[in-house]
Amino acid sequence: MRHVLRGVMVRWLLLPAMILLPGGGLAQFEGSRLVDLTYSFDDATLAWPGNEPFRWEQTVWGRSAAGAWYAAGHFSMAEHSGTHIDAPIHFAENRHTLDAIPLRQLIGPAVVIPVNGSVNENPDYRVSVRDLQQWETRHGRIPAGAVVLAHTGWGSRWPNRNRYFGSATPDDAGTLHFPGFSREAAEFLVRERTISGVGIDTPSIDYGPSRDFVVHRVLNEADVYGLENIANLDQVPESGATLIALPMKIAGGTGGPVRIIALVPGSGGERP
Amino acid sequence: MRHVLRGVMVRWLLLPAMILLPGGGLAQFEGSRLVDLTYSFDDATLAWPGNEPFRWEQTVWGRSAAGAWYAAGHFSMAEHSGTHIDAPIHFAENRHTLDAIPLRQLIGPAVVIPVNGSVNENPDYRVSVRDLQQWETRHGRIPAGAVVLAHTGWGSRWPNRNRYFGSATPDDAGTLHFPGFSREAAEFLVRERTISGVGIDTPSIDYGPSRDFVVHRVLNEADVYGLENIANLDQVPESGATLIALPMKIAGGTGGPVRIIALVPGSGGERP
Repeated sequence: MRHVLRGVMVRWLLLPAMILLPGGGLAQFEGSRLVDLTYSFDDATLAWPGNEPFRWEQTVWGRSAAGAWYAAGHFSMAEHSGTHIDAPIHFAENRHTLDAIPLRQLIGPAVVIPVNGSVNENPDYRVSVRDLQQWETRHGRIPAGAVVLAHTGWGSRWPNRNRYFGSATPDDAGTLHFPGFSREAAEFLVRERTISGVGIDTPSIDYGPSRDFVVHRVLNEADVYGLENIANLDQVPESGATLIALPMKIAGGTGGPVRIIALVPGSGGERP
Repeated sequence: MRHVLRGVMVRWLLLPAMILLPGGGLAQFEGSRLVDLTYSFDDATLAWPGNEPFRWEQTVWGRSAAGAWYAAGHFSMAEHSGTHIDAPIHFAENRHTLDAIPLRQLIGPAVVIPVNGSVNENPDYRVSVRDLQQWETRHGRIPAGAVVLAHTGWGSRWPNRNRYFGSATPDDAGTLHFPGFSREAAEFLVRERTISGVGIDTPSIDYGPSRDFVVHRVLNEADVYGLENIANLDQVPESGATLIALPMKIAGGTGGPVRIIALVPGSGGERP
């Protein structure tokens, strides 16, 4: 047991230390890599059914008569579009708005629950307590402050709207099919463990057919946030990575765009 | 010399290691603190003269007849409003757009240049090469991958539009007064050092009276980004902190909202 703990300690000591050593920046670091878990916002960005799509426009773009380059833009969006965060107030009154989520909840060990096999058999699959317990059998107890991420494999469907929402009529929220978390898993995480957030590579932490959004309610009531439409989860190991999810700071916001990165131990530099 | 290097090594080794130790998350960590360098976006958020203001509206807010709480919003903004990042393409054609800035440039040692004394005497003060060299005399060479931040003390004026833009007519960009960087300092940083970005606690890395925005041009041409309207710089030491600046990922964007945090060695937990 002791050598296991020591191994974990050494990994966690070396990883961030090497990443943050002064003088070398991150460019030359070869013992870890940064993975971007964020989709770009563009014309193809998926918004929740009924929400306005992301719109971006160039307001100035080009060279002046004197030859000076200048470019600027403007955009508008619904809070729950693209790779975004659900602040607890989204489904729980008097819980944290987007700007009030403590910073310490936005950095933590990434716990990746692989359910892509189950999802292949059932697109409405929900992450179960058993899935969480099996992860703990392999990697140890879910650490305090963890961000628990469901890897469903759904990312391969992005940004095909029909395939990603699992419906020929994706504007009708009553017809959706995609995986999420189960109510029991959400209750286990807030009652039996101490986590900072959950996330998933689908449109919602509640599965497509949900009508009561009970997973949102259970988690948000406990001041736990959600990350939705996460990209590139196949590049993050089940255990050992550190998640940093920094959202735009909207006063009173119920959610908003978030840049999510993972610090992943292992070879190779950033993959641009 | 060796013991100095060793001290630096030990500090950098311990700080991130303690922050990221599994099992404790960040809540219990008492050897460092997280500082939020980001202003909230709200009705008072300052936008560059002539730009549309930040607008946010509640689209759904309250309880259903069945008693279920649900809240969501929508917003629009110019890219260069509030605490934001300037992507290199803002002032340099064919340089990085917002989504293309390498992640490794977004995490690095925070180099804080204190010029609030000079700014008290001259609100149009520009950070000089001498200011950078004096920092190096105190703390050693500006490390590769650094994000160089000018602390001018201007944050005490936020969000008073007239005082922050230094003008009784802040909508007229030809009348502004606030501190920035000098052309020579920008050239020194891109030619003599290897930095990732620069930042300032004023509306622009070019000082108020600038007409040619030469600091933007010099830095952006070298694929160096800018951070503007940074908050709480008085809480970051001149040396020893790590900056993490994660922007919203707008495809083709010239800039956008960014959440900036500093990991600061020292006592105390997060100050909410």
